[in-house]
Amino acid sequence: MVKLQFLGTCAGIPSKMRNVSSLVIQMLQYQNECWMFDCGEATQHQLLHSPLTLSKITKIFITHLHGDHIYGLPGVIGSRSFQGATEKLQIFGPKGIKNFIETTLTVSNTYVRYPLEIIEIQEGLICKNDFFSFEAVRLEHGIVSYGYRIVEKDLPGPIDVEKLKSIGVTPGPIYKELKAGKKVKLPNGKIIDGKDYCGPKKVGKIIAIGGDTRKCESIKRLAKDANILIHEATFLDKDRDLAFEHFHSTAFEAAKTAKECNVKVLFLNHISSRYCEGIDDLLREARSTFINSYIPHDLQTYLLHQNDEVVLQLD
Amino acid sequence: MVKLQFLGTCAGIPSKMRNVSSLVIQMLQYQNECWMFDCGEATQHQLLHSPLTLSKITKIFITHLHGDHIYGLPGVIGSRSFQGATEKLQIFGPKGIKNFIETTLTVSNTYVRYPLEIIEIQEGLICKNDFFSFEAVRLEHGIVSYGYRIVEKDLPGPIDVEKLKSIGVTPGPIYKELKAGKKVKLPNGKIIDGKDYCGPKKVGKIIAIGGDTRKCESIKRLAKDANILIHEATFLDKDRDLAFEHFHSTAFEAAKTAKECNVKVLFLNHISSRYCEGIDDLLREARSTFINSYIPHDLQTYLLHQNDEVVLQLD
Ligand SMILES: [Zn+2]
Ligand SMILES: [Zn+2]
Repeated sequence: MVKLQFLGTCAGIPSKMRNVSSLVIQMLQYQNECWMFDCGEATQHQLLHSPLTLSKITKIFITHLHGDHIYGLPGVIGSRSFQGATEKLQIFGPKGIKNFIETTLTVSNTYVRYPLEIIEIQEGLICKNDFFSFEAVRLEHGIVSYGYRIVEKDLPGPIDVEKLKSIGVTPGPIYKELKAGKKVKLPNGKIIDGKDYCGPKKVGKIIAIGGDTRKCESIKRLAKDANILIHEATFLDKDRDLAFEHFHSTAFEAAKTAKECNVKVLFLNHISSRYCEGIDDLLREARSTFINSYIPHDLQTYLLHQNDEVVLQLD
Repeated sequence: MVKLQFLGTCAGIPSKMRNVSSLVIQMLQYQNECWMFDCGEATQHQLLHSPLTLSKITKIFITHLHGDHIYGLPGVIGSRSFQGATEKLQIFGPKGIKNFIETTLTVSNTYVRYPLEIIEIQEGLICKNDFFSFEAVRLEHGIVSYGYRIVEKDLPGPIDVEKLKSIGVTPGPIYKELKAGKKVKLPNGKIIDGKDYCGPKKVGKIIAIGGDTRKCESIKRLAKDANILIHEATFLDKDRDLAFEHFHSTAFEAAKTAKECNVKVLFLNHISSRYCEGIDDLLREARSTFINSYIPHDLQTYLLHQNDEVVLQLD
């Protein structure tokens, strides 16, 4: 199950209703890790109003270096240390992020008590572990801007114990081999294939988090077959010239991408403050093209179930 | 009349109740200028909940470079431009402030459309105009920390029109000379002294804003005869060893300074989050030594009348 916590959904400058960009994603079957995407000013303040704590955040991905996406970093880094976190924090972002972080921490004499790793990325695979791969896809904005594509590895299906017992294979270490899909030689010399004794594999989720971007071709690589696409919708389509000029997208453009790329669920964020208090038009525009569209409010939490059903979590 | 708007009154890291340091002071007879003292993260967010706008802020004074006093600067500077301010903004602060601001703006590609002047200060007079002088006083903290002493010039008293008429001097340009306290030769050759024809002068206010500091001698130069002293009170006096060790003050120490320095009104801020939700002990401790002590909540506005009476402004 995927948990999305929208901390800031506004473009450019904060309003009373919405803060500037930040989002936390948690894969509930891998509980210890929370990943943050962008970190606008007052992100640590928003966290105070959520069940999350800074120490749970272990990776921060920055899409681009505009102030509304990074000015909360020094505070998050410093307060995480102040609160006693000891686990390593990795920060991924475009070239320049290292200078930003190092200068702000040095000038303010901030000593960080946990290992802090800052990785300046380029397009391509930026990080992987046993369960996930993280890829950066270059988008089209006034400055270098990346989207992040997270691919969860497929997991083997449940082992069919009854079927195995019926051929005389009882539970033991051999089950682990079979579950991993390997071929195994039985004591009687017969070779059986784990794949024949497991249910259908659990297909991993794909989550695509866009940075600020104009409508572009590369967003399709980011979004292709994603279970979740998070896409900026700074403008309404009637303002599409403004959107183009300022390297942003409209709600219609985001919805069109979701439809063309076989996305399951679309979340729109980075809403211009001109719409912040009346997002009905934006949502209507998106849904008329892609019905499974959502525009979260700040501090809302959404759950995506294994069957791609979306549920707004109530406190 | 002096107007004080407390935007953030908490030490170190924000809590749900109080934000990190920032304060705006306005002299209501000189309406166009608002001065900000310190600018912790989310200061621009706090302003959204006040009647102030960023464009009204024309001077920002930074006491020291700890993150809880400066991390809101890039956002304030950028959003002030985004909102269309054209008037010059001056920022005063210790050495290092220029590097902090320039790096954060450059990395984030922030273009500022108004004149921005950054002044790295040393102890002494840092700025003056026709009505005020601003002096920096070095305090005792882990890093360089200044307090700011603002002295309003005395204004001449009201001219005694009846008395002047009685000796045949009728209103005209000569009144301006007399009001300025000059000696003037009348057409009949007689010389009169403006001082004899004016009421008592309006004594200028002294406002002293302390930065983070341990109890020290120099705070007395800062606070001497101030109408308003704003002083940190990070700890209760029972924790005075902690306060000393961390270069901070206790409520009792602040009150003692106010008393010894002939201060009229004391405001305590920079409250440790351990007390943030129960400040009664801090206030009781201060008032037992200096009765005219206040601990403002965030977003509270206080007015100081000409007779040094303090009024909490209600919305
Ligand atoms: Zn943005
Ligand atoms: Zn401080």
